Amino acid sequence: MREVAVVGVGMTRFGVSENTNVEMFSEAAMEAINESNLEPKDIEALFFGNVFGSHEEGQANMAPFAVADIGVPNIPATRFEGACASGSVAVRDAFIWVASGYYDIVLAGGTERVLAMDTPAATRAFAMCSNSYYEGPAGITFPGVFAMLAHLYSHKYAIPLPKLKEQMAMVAIKNHHNGKLNPKAHFQATIRDLMEARIARATQRGQPVPTWADEMEFFRDIKVNPMIADPLQLYDCCPFTDGAAALVLASIDKARALTDKPVLVAGVGQCSAGSLADQKDYTQMKSRILSAKQAYTQAGIEPPDVDLCELHDCFTIAEIVAMECLGFFEFGQGSRAVARGETEIGGKIAINPSGGLKAVGHPIGATGARQIYEVVKQLRGECGERQVAGATIGMTDTLGGDAGTICNIILRRGW
Amino acid sequence: MREVAVVGVGMTRFGVSENTNVEMFSEAAMEAINESNLEPKDIEALFFGNVFGSHEEGQANMAPFAVADIGVPNIPATRFEGACASGSVAVRDAFIWVASGYYDIVLAGGTERVLAMDTPAATRAFAMCSNSYYEGPAGITFPGVFAMLAHLYSHKYAIPLPKLKEQMAMVAIKNHHNGKLNPKAHFQATIRDLMEARIARATQRGQPVPTWADEMEFFRDIKVNPMIADPLQLYDCCPFTDGAAALVLASIDKARALTDKPVLVAGVGQCSAGSLADQKDYTQMKSRILSAKQAYTQAGIEPPDVDLCELHDCFTIAEIVAMECLGFFEFGQGSRAVARGETEIGGKIAINPSGGLKAVGHPIGATGARQIYEVVKQLRGECGERQVAGATIGMTDTLGGDAGTICNIILRRGW
Repeated sequence: MREVAVVGVGMTRFGVSENTNVEMFSEAAMEAINESNLEPKDIEALFFGNVFGSHEEGQANMAPFAVADIGVPNIPATRFEGACASGSVAVRDAFIWVASGYYDIVLAGGTERVLAMDTPAATRAFAMCSNSYYEGPAGITFPGVFAMLAHLYSHKYAIPLPKLKEQMAMVAIKNHHNGKLNPKAHFQATIRDLMEARIARATQRGQPVPTWADEMEFFRDIKVNPMIADPLQLYDCCPFTDGAAALVLASIDKARALTDKPVLVAGVGQCSAGSLADQKDYTQMKSRILSAKQAYTQAGIEPPDVDLCELHDCFTIAEIVAMECLGFFEFGQGSRAVARGETEIGGKIAINPSGGLKAVGHPIGATGARQIYEVVKQLRGECGERQVAGATIGMTDTLGGDAGTICNIILRRGW
Repeated sequence: MREVAVVGVGMTRFGVSENTNVEMFSEAAMEAINESNLEPKDIEALFFGNVFGSHEEGQANMAPFAVADIGVPNIPATRFEGACASGSVAVRDAFIWVASGYYDIVLAGGTERVLAMDTPAATRAFAMCSNSYYEGPAGITFPGVFAMLAHLYSHKYAIPLPKLKEQMAMVAIKNHHNGKLNPKAHFQATIRDLMEARIARATQRGQPVPTWADEMEFFRDIKVNPMIADPLQLYDCCPFTDGAAALVLASIDKARALTDKPVLVAGVGQCSAGSLADQKDYTQMKSRILSAKQAYTQAGIEPPDVDLCELHDCFTIAEIVAMECLGFFEFGQGSRAVARGETEIGGKIAINPSGGLKAVGHPIGATGARQIYEVVKQLRGECGERQVAGATIGMTDTLGGDAGTICNIILRRGW
C-alpha cells in the first residue's frame, strides 16, 4: 500500500449555523481544497460523515448533494455513519482508497446541524446510537451513561467522588482555556469568562450575584452549573453544535507536489463493541484499546511517542477514561494526571489543545474530521497561542454510541 | 491490487418480517458465513448498508450491533448509506479493503425493515433521498419522479403512451414470472396469480367479478390496478419489503481454499448526480452511464459480454431506462426489446431473473447485496427453474434517490 498524506484541511466556525448541512460542508471543503492548491475538479471521490440529516433536515442520501454543491456532481460520494465517530470512519475509509492506489486525491469529512433539532429531540436522537431495543427502554441517554461511568471510575479506583468531580472540572477548565485560543471554537471562553457573563446577566436582572474565588468555585455552585446526571453538571457536558470539517487526502507523490508540509496518515484503527450491558469493564473500553492498538501497530509507535491527542471528551469523565484506554496514563491515573496539569499544552502530552468537544463543540458527523484538522494544524505549527511546541506526532480518537464505534487515526509530520 | 472473490451468500426470505433489522441481517450473514465454510470469528470487518433504521426502529449506529449479534463484537463495523443503493455501496467499499491487502475475509450486505413504517411514512422517508430543500417542497415523491420519466421517455422516443404502458406492463409480467420461481421472493406469484387471488376475494365479498382475457387486461383495469402516479399503476411499482442479504468477500488465495466455485468481483463502479433539476436528460442518466463505464473498464468487458443483470426496477419504466444506460440496448429501444421478449431468461440478456425489485421486493438497504446474491447463484448454476443457461458474467445495478447514487458491480465465474 502507498503512503497517504493530508494536503489540506478546512472547517467552519463551529457554533449555531443558519446554513444547511450541505452548505456548511461546502464551506469546509472549499477551504481544504483551496489550501491544497487544488480545484474541485481534481477531487476523485468524497467520503462523508453525517448522522442525523434525515432528522435535522429531512435529508437522507446527502453525500451526492455535497459534491454537487462544490461543482463536481458526478464523482462517487458515500455517506458513513458510526454515530459520533462518523467523520473519523469516513476519513479512515478514504485512506484505504488512496493507499490501495485506486484514487490519488479524495475529499473526506463530515457535517452536522445538531441545533436544527431542539434539545429534547437531539438528546433522544443521540440516544438512538445506543442499542435501542435493550438500552432505550431503560431510559438511558448519554449523560446517564457517562454519569454511571464516573461513579464506576470513582469506585473502582477508590477516588472519592468529590475529589473526582474536582478533577473532572479541571478537564473542563483546561479545555475551555484551550478553546479560548481557537478562533473556530463554539465557546471561545474560559470557564471564568462564562462565569462573568452569567454574573453580568444576573446583575442586570437584579438577582443576587454570586462571587466565586476561582473557576473551581463556579463548578461547585449547582445554581449556575446545574446537575444534568449526577455527578455530571452542565459544564461537564459538551454542547450541541453545528459545524462541518473536511480534508483532502492524496498519495504521497501527489502530496509532495502540492505542499511542502504534507502530514502523513501513519496509522488507522477502528473497532466495535456490542451493547453497553455486554461490555465487561466500561472504564477499560475494549473497543478503544483494540482500535488504538491497530493504529499504533501500523504507525510503528508507542503511546509515549504521541505529542498531542484530540480525543473524545463528550463529557469530562470521558476524556479521563479515553486517555487511559489510549495508553497515555496507567488505568486509574488519568484523573490525577489532569489535576497535575500533565495534559495541558506544555504538559506530558497535550490533550485536546483545540479545546476538544467541550469547547470547540460536537457536531457529531463532523467531529472526527475536525479533530484531524487540529492535529494537522498543530503538526504544521500553525496554531498560534495554543501551539504544542515541536509537535511531530498527533492522534485522534472518536467514540460513537456507548463505544459501539471507535476510530483512531495517527498523523505525523511528513517533512 | 489483489483479485477479490465472493465465497458465500445469504439472504432472508423477503416479505413482511417480525424480526428486527439486526436479526434479519444475522440470519443472512450466518447463511453466507456457513456457505463459505467459515465461522464468524474468521470475519475481519463488516460493511453494512441501511438507510432508515433510525426511523424504522429508533436505531442509529446499527453496524456494531450487527457484528455483536453474530458473536464477533470487536471487529470494525461500518454503516453505509446511499439511499436505495446502500447495500451495493457497502459491498463496493468492502471490495477495496480486500483488494488492497488490508483484510483477507470480510462480510458485506445490508438490511431494511421498510414495513416497520406505515405506507405514508415510508413514502415520505423515501422522498428524503431526493434533494429535500429543492424537491421536497415541490411534493415530488418517487412515484411522481418515475411517472414523469415515463412521459419523458414516451415523448422523446415518440412511443405513444398507451403503447409504452403496455411495454412497461410486460416488464412487470416478466419479473413476476421470474419471481414465482424464486423461493426467497416477496411475491412468488405471476400477475395472473395475483389477479386470480383478487377475483377470489371479490367473489367472497359478493362484488362483480371482472374477467380478463390475459395478464395485460389486468393491467388495463384501473379498478384492480389503480393509478398511483399517471401513467404508473400499482403493479408498475415495486413493493415495500423487509429483508436482509449478505455476502462474504475473500482474497482470491483464501477463496480458492474455501470454495471450488469462487465468483470474482471483476469490476466496480459508483457515481453521483446532483438534484433532479440539474440532470440534463433523465432518460440518459449520466451518473449511471459513468458508473457502469468504470465497472466495464475494470472488468475489461463490453455490455454484450454480460449474460444477466440484476438491475434497479423500482418502477417498470426504471428497468427500461436502466437497460439502456447500461448499454444493453440503444437509447429508445429498451421498451421494444422488452416487448420482443429479449430480456426474458433465455433472451438476448436476462434482466432480473430473480424477479427484480418488482417481485423479490425492495428492502432498500439490502437490495444491492440481494442482487449480488442472485448473480452469484446464477453464475454457480444454482437457480433451478430460473437458471440462465451458461451464465459466465453477471452484473448488478442499484440506484439511490433520483440517481443521486448509482453503483454497479460486475461478477464473473472464477473457475
